[in-house]
Amino acid sequence: MKALVYHGPGNKAWEDVPDPVIVDPTDVIVRVDTTTICGTDLHILKGDVPAVTDGRILGHEGVGTVTEVGSAVSTVAVGDRVIISCISACGACSYCHQGLYAHCLADEGASGIGWIFGHLINGTQAELVRVPFADNSVYKVPEGVSDEAAVMLSDILPTGFEIGVRYGRVKPGDVVAVVGAGPVGLASIMTSSLYGAARIIALDLDTNRLEQARAFGATDTVDSGADDWADQVRAMTDGLGVDVAIEAVGIPGTFEACTKIVRPGGAVANVGVHGKPVELALQDLWIMDLSITMGLVSTSTTPMLLKLVAQHKLAAEKFATHHFTFDQMLDAYDTFGRAAETKALKVVISR
Amino acid sequence: MKALVYHGPGNKAWEDVPDPVIVDPTDVIVRVDTTTICGTDLHILKGDVPAVTDGRILGHEGVGTVTEVGSAVSTVAVGDRVIISCISACGACSYCHQGLYAHCLADEGASGIGWIFGHLINGTQAELVRVPFADNSVYKVPEGVSDEAAVMLSDILPTGFEIGVRYGRVKPGDVVAVVGAGPVGLASIMTSSLYGAARIIALDLDTNRLEQARAFGATDTVDSGADDWADQVRAMTDGLGVDVAIEAVGIPGTFEACTKIVRPGGAVANVGVHGKPVELALQDLWIMDLSITMGLVSTSTTPMLLKLVAQHKLAAEKFATHHFTFDQMLDAYDTFGRAAETKALKVVISR
Repeated sequence: MKALVYHGPGNKAWEDVPDPVIVDPTDVIVRVDTTTICGTDLHILKGDVPAVTDGRILGHEGVGTVTEVGSAVSTVAVGDRVIISCISACGACSYCHQGLYAHCLADEGASGIGWIFGHLINGTQAELVRVPFADNSVYKVPEGVSDEAAVMLSDILPTGFEIGVRYGRVKPGDVVAVVGAGPVGLASIMTSSLYGAARIIALDLDTNRLEQARAFGATDTVDSGADDWADQVRAMTDGLGVDVAIEAVGIPGTFEACTKIVRPGGAVANVGVHGKPVELALQDLWIMDLSITMGLVSTSTTPMLLKLVAQHKLAAEKFATHHFTFDQMLDAYDTFGRAAETKALKVVISR
Repeated sequence: MKALVYHGPGNKAWEDVPDPVIVDPTDVIVRVDTTTICGTDLHILKGDVPAVTDGRILGHEGVGTVTEVGSAVSTVAVGDRVIISCISACGACSYCHQGLYAHCLADEGASGIGWIFGHLINGTQAELVRVPFADNSVYKVPEGVSDEAAVMLSDILPTGFEIGVRYGRVKPGDVVAVVGAGPVGLASIMTSSLYGAARIIALDLDTNRLEQARAFGATDTVDSGADDWADQVRAMTDGLGVDVAIEAVGIPGTFEACTKIVRPGGAVANVGVHGKPVELALQDLWIMDLSITMGLVSTSTTPMLLKLVAQHKLAAEKFATHHFTFDQMLDAYDTFGRAAETKALKVVISR
């Protein structure tokens, strides 16, 4: 089969590799019909994730058709059309029992972390993929849900929802600020309304992204490069700050921005993947009755989000801005890698 | 009357001052029968809280007898024996409606923060004190509860409970680590068992405090000066870390210690009052599904804790290690100020 293979920092190829085979009885093999690229894949290609080694097939998002089923798999069958979750979960460990699949303790990939595709085992940017723990790691796609909508449930929509909206405990009437209107920020914006946020303020330096944010449900936008950006945000509240500030970039400045606009008793939900420590101004914040949360998605809400997509209450396909075929995989990377210029949100790559 | 008056950094006196009078119809005047000293009072005396100005009567904890009642007060009467809460709450603003009395928006003391006694208005280290918003800021003491038990409900027990145990969401079976076994840390230790913590680990540099911690309910103690302190703590868990780490000191090192021993999916509850920023290692922590909380006590749980004290289920009087009369106020400060040496937890000063 063909697959997108990582060959060390800066090097990747769309090349011939052996077909995957069933290794454990809980595995399935899925023919990938649609996949996409995540910002994390770009980080890997820069060499930022040393656990990813030469020869690894990248990708942790996909929709496909089951072609082979291990002897212990009970919930999916050959021919089923499924979403491949970015998180693999054994379903049997203490973390899985809590629904905290991100921290599954099974030793697949010898990790103890549920994100293994395109990281510790071969991923979904391939014609076929082996999916471990299939009973807990794939979701059947209902009729009427397109591939390009379904693939947004592998990672991006549950991430924005679980780590942003749910950890931030968004509730009816809240004013929510989302700092960073990239794909994951937009996923938080789109899903904030599920819990009845009254006002959703998108902050970004990029005017194009702020425009896109409105299409995803932002009621207000603030250019975070403006000197008075924080005052502008506070003026959209009762003056005390936002109920929930969602960080969706992953740098110290945006994290600190969230702590500056949140009200006493509010929440800062960090969604961004950080590479550096941040300064937490506890000398000012200790008295503020804040909750600051962070985490890796567990995709425990994928079934719920999928139901909303099937009911046409969540237009997941909106993230799909560019379309490619598998043999254009390198073009897709090029377009996604120049997102500021191409205005790409998610590039959809289909068989 | 006599009162303990702050006269700028390093200066205090037990001196004659005018008796307080009713200012607003929601005020009461309380004859203070018992008061105590808080670490915050020592900070004020060092000049660390510039909002406290020359001439201010210190103290925010007390038990006393109502001697005069404003015309709008409906729930307490002259002669009632009451706990004076460290937090004053109007009961009518949006924060009070949420029970977040710490952030009461009333302008008494022009603060917008519920801690005003011995800070923005005169406090409880006096023979008499004016208590604003009495209907929401004092609690009648049931028969059979001693002054020395009741005075621990002004601040210390609700602080350890609300900001440590409740914000940390301690639940049955949890392993809880409390970093810092001073009075507030001991309050968290004592109240962790209310939510069924299975193992309560006290950490401190001071052997005497670790011994005291056992008397307050710690099941294990770890000398936090040991090179392998974190390994010792982890060995008391399933190897993954504690469910809840409570910070009860207020310095960067103890905050960071909490983030090192907490398990994925766990909680860090900061109780300490900080004077400096801390470094938050988001490059490691972003993936860990943590909640980090902090805040000023609201004393919204005082009625519940008081019930437990009256039922002899919470031995609040254990904090009272030294006893003084009002005319020994300066001796009480001396003993409390040298707590490492005198082994003082709370000094109780009574009429």
